[in-house]
Amino acid sequence: RINGDRLWDSLMEMAKIGPGIAGGNNRQTLTDADAEGRKLFKAWCDDAGLTMGVDQMGTMFMTRDGTDPDALPVYIGSHLDTQPTGGKYDGVLGVLSGLEVVRTLNDLGIRTKHPIVVTNWTNEEGARFAPAMLASGVFAGVHDLDYAYARKDPDGKTFGDELKRIGWVGEEEVGARKMHAYFEYHMEQGPILEAENKQIGVVTHCQGLWWLEFTLTGREAHTGSTPMNMRVNAGLAMSRILEMVQEVAMAEQPGAVGGVGQVFFSPNSRNVLPGKVVFTVDIRTPSQEKLDRMRAKIEKQAAEICDKLSVGCSVEAVGHFDPVTFDPVLVGRVRDAAEKLGYSHMNIISGAGHDACWAAKVAPATMIMCPCVGGLSHNEAEEISKDWASAGADVLFHAVLETAEI
Amino acid sequence: RINGDRLWDSLMEMAKIGPGIAGGNNRQTLTDADAEGRKLFKAWCDDAGLTMGVDQMGTMFMTRDGTDPDALPVYIGSHLDTQPTGGKYDGVLGVLSGLEVVRTLNDLGIRTKHPIVVTNWTNEEGARFAPAMLASGVFAGVHDLDYAYARKDPDGKTFGDELKRIGWVGEEEVGARKMHAYFEYHMEQGPILEAENKQIGVVTHCQGLWWLEFTLTGREAHTGSTPMNMRVNAGLAMSRILEMVQEVAMAEQPGAVGGVGQVFFSPNSRNVLPGKVVFTVDIRTPSQEKLDRMRAKIEKQAAEICDKLSVGCSVEAVGHFDPVTFDPVLVGRVRDAAEKLGYSHMNIISGAGHDACWAAKVAPATMIMCPCVGGLSHNEAEEISKDWASAGADVLFHAVLETAEI
Ligand SMILES: NC(=O)NCCC(=O)O
Ligand SMILES: NC(=O)NCCC(=O)O
Repeated sequence: RINGDRLWDSLMEMAKIGPGIAGGNNRQTLTDADAEGRKLFKAWCDDAGLTMGVDQMGTMFMTRDGTDPDALPVYIGSHLDTQPTGGKYDGVLGVLSGLEVVRTLNDLGIRTKHPIVVTNWTNEEGARFAPAMLASGVFAGVHDLDYAYARKDPDGKTFGDELKRIGWVGEEEVGARKMHAYFEYHMEQGPILEAENKQIGVVTHCQGLWWLEFTLTGREAHTGSTPMNMRVNAGLAMSRILEMVQEVAMAEQPGAVGGVGQVFFSPNSRNVLPGKVVFTVDIRTPSQEKLDRMRAKIEKQAAEICDKLSVGCSVEAVGHFDPVTFDPVLVGRVRDAAEKLGYSHMNIISGAGHDACWAAKVAPATMIMCPCVGGLSHNEAEEISKDWASAGADVLFHAVLETAEI
Repeated sequence: RINGDRLWDSLMEMAKIGPGIAGGNNRQTLTDADAEGRKLFKAWCDDAGLTMGVDQMGTMFMTRDGTDPDALPVYIGSHLDTQPTGGKYDGVLGVLSGLEVVRTLNDLGIRTKHPIVVTNWTNEEGARFAPAMLASGVFAGVHDLDYAYARKDPDGKTFGDELKRIGWVGEEEVGARKMHAYFEYHMEQGPILEAENKQIGVVTHCQGLWWLEFTLTGREAHTGSTPMNMRVNAGLAMSRILEMVQEVAMAEQPGAVGGVGQVFFSPNSRNVLPGKVVFTVDIRTPSQEKLDRMRAKIEKQAAEICDKLSVGCSVEAVGHFDPVTFDPVLVGRVRDAAEKLGYSHMNIISGAGHDACWAAKVAPATMIMCPCVGGLSHNEAEEISKDWASAGADVLFHAVLETAEI
C-alpha cells in the first residue's frame, strides 16, 4: 500500500501555492503561481530520483528508469493547474499520487521492467486558455502547436507568450514520446460514488463535449430613451439561448448536461443595451448521437432566436472531444486491483474531460476515480477525505505495477 | 443667434480628449481624460471672462457676473463625462452650448441682471460609479456626501479617492448655491424628434427610473460532472429574470422600458456553473403608478424564479428617481423662443435621466432637446447635425436671456 499520510501532506503543501479566497486555490495555468507549483513538484521529483523532460507545450515528464532499455514507459498523469476558484484536489491528486507511487516503489526497493513517467500536463483546465486539455490535445495530434500558442486569455495574452514568460518552453517535440500505457487518477467531481457509497470508480468511458462560443451583435443604445420596439437586444437573445440550452439538455435526460459558465457583456454599463454579448455553451453526454443532436438543435434554435430579435449571431467551437471508451485491459486491471485490495467499486463514466481522453487516442489508457464531498468541484470548497485519496492511490499503485511489470 | 460654427468647433475640440475606439469617446468620470477635459473647458471659460467655483463633488460652476448684486444666477448645466463607449454630444452639447451663450453675450456686449453660471456636473453618466447624476443628486439633497464618496467602480476604487486623485475636490459646500432657474440643453438620445421631423423638443417631463442590482447566489460546480438535477444555477435564474423584465415592460406599453446593460458572472469560467451572478435591471416610465407597479412585479417574480431554482436572490436599489414635471413658466419660455425663432417644435418627455431632474427639486428647471440620428446614444456612433446643434443653442440663448433679464 502507498503512504496515505505522505500523499496527504504533499497535497496540503502544494495547496499553499496560489491560495484562493475561500480555502481553495487559484493556480491558473502559466501564472507565477503555476511556475511556483512546478518548481515544488520538480524538487520532490528530484528527491525521488526522477529525471525531467519538458516538451514545447511545457508539459513535465518525470521519469523513473525501468530495467528493460527497450520497454516503453507507463505514464501516470494529470495536472497541477487549477480553476480561478478551484479546489485543492482537482488534478493535483493525480499528479501527486503518481509521485507517491514512485516514492512507494523506492521505499520497497522495487524496480519495474517498464519506466514510469509521472506527468504534469499544461493547461488542463482551459479556464485561462480554451480549450481544456490543451497540451495533451497537442500531444495526441488533435491540435497543432501554432494553434495552441495562439490561444488567448481574456486579457488578450497568448499561451505562447505566457509559457515563455514563466520559463517553461521545453525542447522536446510535442507527441514524440510513445506510451506503453496511460493511467490517470482523479477525484470524481460529481455525486455518484459518494451517493452509492463506493470507494473506487472504475472509469469505463468519458462523455463527449462541445464548447460553443456565441458572439451576439446587438445595437448599443440607451436603456432609458430607446423604445422597446427599437431595441436590438443582444442580452435578451443571450437569455433566451440559455433557457433553450437548458431545455435541450433536459430533453436528453438522463445522461446529458448543458449550461453556461462564462458571459461577457460589452460595454457592460448599466444604462447601455449591450452591443455585444459573448458566452460559451458547454454541452456533454456519453452518447455520440445525443452530442451531435444537441449541438445541431442548439445552433439551429439560437439562430432562430437571434433572427427574431434582429440580433447578429456567430458561433465558434472552442472546445470539443467525442465520447471516449477506455482500454478494456487496463480497465480490467483497475477493477482487479480494487477487488484484490478489498475496496468497494463500481463502473463510472467520467463527467469531466481529462488528459486521459486525449492520451486514449495514442495509447491504451484508463482512469481511476475517488468520491468527493457533495459532488462538488470547480469550487474552492471541493473536498475529499484522506482515506478516499489513499484508496485510489493504492489501486493506481497496483494497476501500474501490474502494467509496468516487475 | 449664437455662433453655430464656433459651437461645433468646440464640440470637435473636446471630442479629441479621451477618444473611443470607433469615433466616439471614452472620457469616463474621474479618469485622467476627464481631468484633461475639465482643463480645456476651464481654459475656454477663462478666455470668456468667467470665474470658477468648485464644490466638494468636483462640480465646476463658471460664473458670468450680473448687473444686480442681489439677483440669483441662472444656471445652464450638463456634463462632460461620457460612457465607456460614448458619443461626442451626450452632455457635452449642453455644457458647451452654455459656454456659447456666454460667448455670444460677450460678442454682443450684453449684460444681464442675473449672473449666468455654466455648470459641468460630475459623474452624470453613472457608468463608473452608480447612481447616475450623482453630483447633482448630492446638490439637491437626495444623497449625502459620504454616500457619494463611498461609491465604488468595478475595480473597487471609490469616488472620493478618485476625485482626490484627479485633483478636483473643491471647497464649496455641495448644494449651498441658490438658483434663480436651471436650464439644460441635451440631444434627445431617442428617435422621436427625428421621426417627427422637429428641430426642437420642448421637454415637459422626465420619466422615472429604478436601477435594481440583483445578486444571485448559485453553487459553483463543474459544468460537465454536475447532473442537471443537482445544479443551483444562478445563470439560468438570471436568464429567466431578463426575460421576465422584458415581459413586465411589454405589459406596460406604450410608455415604459425595461432592460439590462450590465452582467457579471463569477468566477466566469467556461466549465464552472456560476456561484454568483450580479446584474442591474433598468426600468423607466413617466408614470409613477407604472414605475411602482413594475418594480413590485419584478421583485416578486424574480424571487419566485430564484426560489424555484433554489438560487439565493438579493436586490439593492442603486439608482432611482421619480418622474419629474418641469417648471411650466420655463417650459413656456422654451416654447416661445422656438416659436419666435421659427424652429419646428413639439413637447417631449425625456427618456434619459438628466441633472435637470435633480435641479428641479431645488429650483425652477427645464430642458431643451435636439434630434439625433437614428435615436442612437450611448454608442460611439451617436450623431447630430451642426444645424440641429445650433438651433437648440439658439433656443437656449433666448430662453436664458428672457430669464436672466437684460
Ligand atoms: N477535470 C476537469 O475539470 N477538467 C477540465 C475540463 C472540463 O471542463 O472537463
Ligand atoms: N443622459 C444620460 O444618458 N444620462 C445618464 C443617466 C441615464 O441612464 O439616464
